[in-house]
Amino acid sequence: MGNERIGRIRGVLRDDNIDGILITTLENVRYLSGFTGSDAALVMTESKGYFLTDSRYTTQAKEEVSGFEFIEYKKKIEGLSDLINDLGLSGVGFEAQDLSYQAHKELAEKVSGGQLIPLNERIKNIRAVKDEEEIGRIKRAIDIASQSLRENAWRVAPGNQEREIALELEFSMRRNGADIIAFDTIVASGVRSALPHGRASERRVEAGEFVIIDFGARYRGYYSDETCTFFCGKPNRRQQEVYQIVKDAHDKAISSVRPGMKATELDAVARDWIRDAGYGDYFGHGTGHGVGLEVHENPVIGFQSKDILEEGMVFTIEPGIYIPGWGGVRIEDMVLVTGSGCEVLTGLSKEVTVIE
Amino acid sequence: MGNERIGRIRGVLRDDNIDGILITTLENVRYLSGFTGSDAALVMTESKGYFLTDSRYTTQAKEEVSGFEFIEYKKKIEGLSDLINDLGLSGVGFEAQDLSYQAHKELAEKVSGGQLIPLNERIKNIRAVKDEEEIGRIKRAIDIASQSLRENAWRVAPGNQEREIALELEFSMRRNGADIIAFDTIVASGVRSALPHGRASERRVEAGEFVIIDFGARYRGYYSDETCTFFCGKPNRRQQEVYQIVKDAHDKAISSVRPGMKATELDAVARDWIRDAGYGDYFGHGTGHGVGLEVHENPVIGFQSKDILEEGMVFTIEPGIYIPGWGGVRIEDMVLVTGSGCEVLTGLSKEVTVIE
Repeated sequence: MGNERIGRIRGVLRDDNIDGILITTLENVRYLSGFTGSDAALVMTESKGYFLTDSRYTTQAKEEVSGFEFIEYKKKIEGLSDLINDLGLSGVGFEAQDLSYQAHKELAEKVSGGQLIPLNERIKNIRAVKDEEEIGRIKRAIDIASQSLRENAWRVAPGNQEREIALELEFSMRRNGADIIAFDTIVASGVRSALPHGRASERRVEAGEFVIIDFGARYRGYYSDETCTFFCGKPNRRQQEVYQIVKDAHDKAISSVRPGMKATELDAVARDWIRDAGYGDYFGHGTGHGVGLEVHENPVIGFQSKDILEEGMVFTIEPGIYIPGWGGVRIEDMVLVTGSGCEVLTGLSKEVTVIE
Repeated sequence: MGNERIGRIRGVLRDDNIDGILITTLENVRYLSGFTGSDAALVMTESKGYFLTDSRYTTQAKEEVSGFEFIEYKKKIEGLSDLINDLGLSGVGFEAQDLSYQAHKELAEKVSGGQLIPLNERIKNIRAVKDEEEIGRIKRAIDIASQSLRENAWRVAPGNQEREIALELEFSMRRNGADIIAFDTIVASGVRSALPHGRASERRVEAGEFVIIDFGARYRGYYSDETCTFFCGKPNRRQQEVYQIVKDAHDKAISSVRPGMKATELDAVARDWIRDAGYGDYFGHGTGHGVGLEVHENPVIGFQSKDILEEGMVFTIEPGIYIPGWGGVRIEDMVLVTGSGCEVLTGLSKEVTVIE
C-alpha cells in the first residue's frame, strides 16, 4: 500500500517540478508513513522519505514506520530546516492550508538556499480516492456505529435526555471497537433540531418532535459519519412534508452520483430540490464532504467546490432543512463512487423512524 | 467576566498600536465571546466587537453570544475582508500561529487599504492567567477525572487489558459529567510505559510492571490533565529508584514554583535533578504546560520557554523517565500559581500505588 500512496506524492513532485515536499498534517503523515502519534513531519524527495519526530515518539515511530530515514528533533522548525539545507533542496512544496503563517515565516528564514512553494489543491486531494484497505476500515467504522445505534435506538423516546442518549450511543461505539468517537455526537430534539450542529444537551425529548442523531466512529484512523432523524409520535402534515422533501433531496442526490460529475452539480441536485420546494433559505450548509482519515476532507460537495467526482471517492450526502423555532431534519449517508454510480456504505434505514 | 477579558484584547490593540484584531482560534473566540461551536471568528476594535459565523451556527451563536454585532458569512475570507474593508481598518493584528499561510495570503489580497500584522506571544498569553470562573471549571474537571480514577483504580491489575481500563475510566468521566474526554487516555503498561504517549492498547497488564495512566476530563470547555503511575506487585530496587527520582523531581519542582520565576528555571529544577541522578537521556519532554481551554496552552514549562510565571497561571508539572525496552514512570499534577508559591489542584496521591 505504501508504494501506491508514496507514488502519488512523487507525482506531485514531478508535476510541480519541485525536488522536495514537506508534509506537516498528521493525517497525511499517517497516510504516507503509518505513524499514529500526534507530532511528526515528513520530507519526501524523488528518491527517499525522511520521518521527523521528537523524542516522545521515537519508540512508537520505530514500531509503526518503515521505509523512512528517522530524524529526531528538539525544535521542529530547526529539524526541518537543517534537513532541507543538508539535502540541498532548491524547491520544497509545503501544505499551505496547514502550515501557519508563523511557522512558514520561521522556516523560510532558516532555509538557506531553497525556496518554499505553497501546494494547494493537489496535495489536499491525494487522499480523496480510497484504496481497498481504507475502504475496509471505513466500512468497519460504519458497522461499529450502525450496530451501536441499533442497540440504542429504543432510547430515543419522550422523557429521555439528549445527553444520556448520546452518552450511551458513544459507550456502545467504544465497546464495539471504535478507536474514538468521530465528533461530539449530535442529538438535537424539538426546536434544537433546527441547529445543524446541535450537540446533545440536557434537554429531554418530547412527543411530537424530530430528533436528529448525527454520529460516527473511528476505526484504525478512519471515520464514519451518518445522520438519522427520528420522530417521536405521529408527525403532522408539515413535519411529514419537510421530512419527505429532505428524503427526496437525499435520494435524488445519491441516484445522480457519477464519476466525472462536478461536485457542484451533485450539490445542486439536492439544493435545487429543496429550493424548488420552497425551503431554500433553510438549507445553509453543503450537501456533503469526503470522509477518511478526517471527518471532513476532500472532495467537498458544495456550491463552491472545484472537485470532480472520481471512482473510489468516499463522501457524505446530507441535505437538511432547519427552521428556527420549529425544528429540522437532516438525512445523511456515506457513499463510495463506483464505475457507474455509487454504493451506499451506510446501512441504516432512512425512512422516518417513528417512535410510538 | 467578558469585560476583563475584552480589556486584555484592547490592551494588545493599544500596545501594538493597531486598530483591529482578528481572532481565529476557536478557544480565543470562546474565551472572548462564549461561543462553543466549531466555526467562527471575531474582529475586535477599540470600540466594538464583531462576531462572524456561517449559517450552521447563527442560531447557536445568538443563544450564546452577547455584546457583539453578528455577521453571517458564506465564504469566511470574504466575510472577514468585507468587514475589515468596511470598517476602514488600517492595521489588523492576526493570530500568526493559527492562521494558515494560505488563509493569510487570500485575506491579504482582499484587504484593500489596511495591513495585516502578525501577533505572536502577546495574543498567545491572553488566556495564561485564569480568572475565578475559569479556575472553578478547571477544578470541576479535575474532580470529575479524579473521582473517575478512584472508581476504576481496582482495574489496574494483572490480566486486565489497557484498553478496557481506559474505556471504563473514560465512561466514568463522561457519566460523572465530563463534556468530553480531554485526550486519548494513556494506559501504558510494562515496556509500553517507556512510551511517553502510549495510548491504551490491547496489551494486558502483568505483575512486576509499571502502569502509567495519563487522563483528563473537560468541563464547560476547561480541561484537566493528571498522570498516576501504578505498580503491579512489589517493585524491584531499580524500579523503586526510578520512581523515587521522578517523584523527587516532581516534588522539588512544585515546591520551587514562585510568581516572577522564569519557566526555564522551573523546568531546570526537574531536569537537573533527573540528569544528576544519571537519567538525563531518558527525560525528553518539557516539565509542564498550561492547561485551560486547551490541554496544552501557555505557559510552556520547558527549556526553550520565554514565559515568566504569574499568579493565576495554571499548568502541569510532569517529569518522567522512559527507558526503552525497560519501562517508564511519569508523575503529573496541575498547579495554580499563588502570590507566594502554588496550590496543587489535582488531588490524587502521587506515592507509588502498589497493586497486590
